[in-house]
Amino acid sequence: MKNNKLVVVGTMAFDEISTPTAQSGKILGGAATYIGLAAAYSEADIAAVSVVGEDFPKEHLNLLTDRGIDISGVEQVRGGKSFYWKGKYHDNMNKRDTLDTQLNVLAEFNPIVPEKYRDAAVVMLGNLDPNVQQKVLDQLTPNPNRTVLLDTMNFWMDLQLPALLNEIKQVDIISINDEEAFQLSGETNLVLAAKTIHKMGPEYVIIKKGEHGALVFYKGDPFYAPALPLEKVVDPTGAGDSFAGGLSGYLAAQQSSTAHTIKEGVLHGTAAASLCVSAMGTAGLVESSKEDFLAQLQKLERLRTITT
Amino acid sequence: MKNNKLVVVGTMAFDEISTPTAQSGKILGGAATYIGLAAAYSEADIAAVSVVGEDFPKEHLNLLTDRGIDISGVEQVRGGKSFYWKGKYHDNMNKRDTLDTQLNVLAEFNPIVPEKYRDAAVVMLGNLDPNVQQKVLDQLTPNPNRTVLLDTMNFWMDLQLPALLNEIKQVDIISINDEEAFQLSGETNLVLAAKTIHKMGPEYVIIKKGEHGALVFYKGDPFYAPALPLEKVVDPTGAGDSFAGGLSGYLAAQQSSTAHTIKEGVLHGTAAASLCVSAMGTAGLVESSKEDFLAQLQKLERLRTITT
Repeated sequence: MKNNKLVVVGTMAFDEISTPTAQSGKILGGAATYIGLAAAYSEADIAAVSVVGEDFPKEHLNLLTDRGIDISGVEQVRGGKSFYWKGKYHDNMNKRDTLDTQLNVLAEFNPIVPEKYRDAAVVMLGNLDPNVQQKVLDQLTPNPNRTVLLDTMNFWMDLQLPALLNEIKQVDIISINDEEAFQLSGETNLVLAAKTIHKMGPEYVIIKKGEHGALVFYKGDPFYAPALPLEKVVDPTGAGDSFAGGLSGYLAAQQSSTAHTIKEGVLHGTAAASLCVSAMGTAGLVESSKEDFLAQLQKLERLRTITT
Repeated sequence: MKNNKLVVVGTMAFDEISTPTAQSGKILGGAATYIGLAAAYSEADIAAVSVVGEDFPKEHLNLLTDRGIDISGVEQVRGGKSFYWKGKYHDNMNKRDTLDTQLNVLAEFNPIVPEKYRDAAVVMLGNLDPNVQQKVLDQLTPNPNRTVLLDTMNFWMDLQLPALLNEIKQVDIISINDEEAFQLSGETNLVLAAKTIHKMGPEYVIIKKGEHGALVFYKGDPFYAPALPLEKVVDPTGAGDSFAGGLSGYLAAQQSSTAHTIKEGVLHGTAAASLCVSAMGTAGLVESSKEDFLAQLQKLERLRTITT
């Protein structure tokens, strides 16, 4: 059935980020956080499914509820510590090193999709252990109009490839970056990589190229969504998640996943990512209004069109 | 005055190219060759200004005249040897090493613009010593409707920066790649690089990003022309020149250099570049018809548009 419900599963975490010019300290992070905040620019009815420790401050959760996101699926583990990630960006901001990862409560994460959202028309599987992503799919009630999106990363290709491939088989849209597409497909050319990944299951293969934008591969002709050229990138953390959030939120709000809405959705994802990278951590999304988001969409339109 | 004349100045040469999968042997090359062949997809009236040695075969020149290009400005030096370049591409085709360069007749190149073309509305200064580019500009008769385009490379930034900066001051459109834009501007961000280069003179700053497309910076809003995703890149040699040729040919044929036609022209340049890289050396252009060129333009349109 059609509805505007979006289930987002992913981490909610503490991040500690170093860029060449700034130190974040211990701040709010996590894929589900970025996805949820970005999706909230749309009129989707969003539920976050995640796990946090007792150390996770209420103010962080309030950032989600303030934007209308249902957090009844966010488990808070008594006595537990939240997932923690520490990373450092290189000079050009295109590469980063992970300095520390503490799974903490994430190690035992058993996702529970709230009853009300089990018929959701759109499900966004944020970067996570594919076995955990599968547990979310297993709880859903059948919906012939459902669109399932998957984000993942090289880490799971290295450690959980069979489970990941089984997951990829079940999704409609996969969103990964170029290097991950090469690793997953064994190809070194984007077009060939997309063809190989198509055969693994997803009808739509979206390849993110960071500052160079994203390509949507679907049947014959690809679609290119350029990224907005930015004078300043403060922190790239969460850009891919924000992209996934902007896209999945749009699809849920439109109650449609045609090629047309998916391409439009990719532009919404691009707009959200451009807001995300403009400040440290989630601040770019938290401090940007719906009007700011629409302004980015308009800039993107001008970037793409010839008539001025 | 308005006319459809395009003066192209640049090298005509012998190239010897190694890619990971092929060796070209000694083949036709040179910036003016690629620019001329690519511009010839348009209805521009094209004159090539260049220099070759006695060793330069008539069949190479015939490739230009067969496409209607005037070669009365191509000097053939008796007893001289043609410019020779030998290069080898790395595995990913994005980098190359120059293995040998023999200037030969190019060392004494004194360009002569044919009388008939001195009032040309469009002048394309292909990659060359900026002092030679200047000699071409000095021979032109005044034309208030003239558009001058410049292509250059890091080599001239290293060796002839004052002359290059003097040249850049006089042009309307500069076309360089991202690394060259960083070097020329001293910036490490494309938006800031474009701003700095604007101040050097050109109203339009076009930054080529290879497989990631090209950005046109002009006043407020940039324009993004994506490159066609290709399954196979045989040889990237001449892609930037083909881009410049497709663009300058279009402007001359349209007898217009508004923001609108320049953006359209960048798409024409992109289409020409995609044909160029599909085969070794100039073969991609030589073997592609006007219909092939138009087919690439249509593919680009589908790549850029949401409605399918």
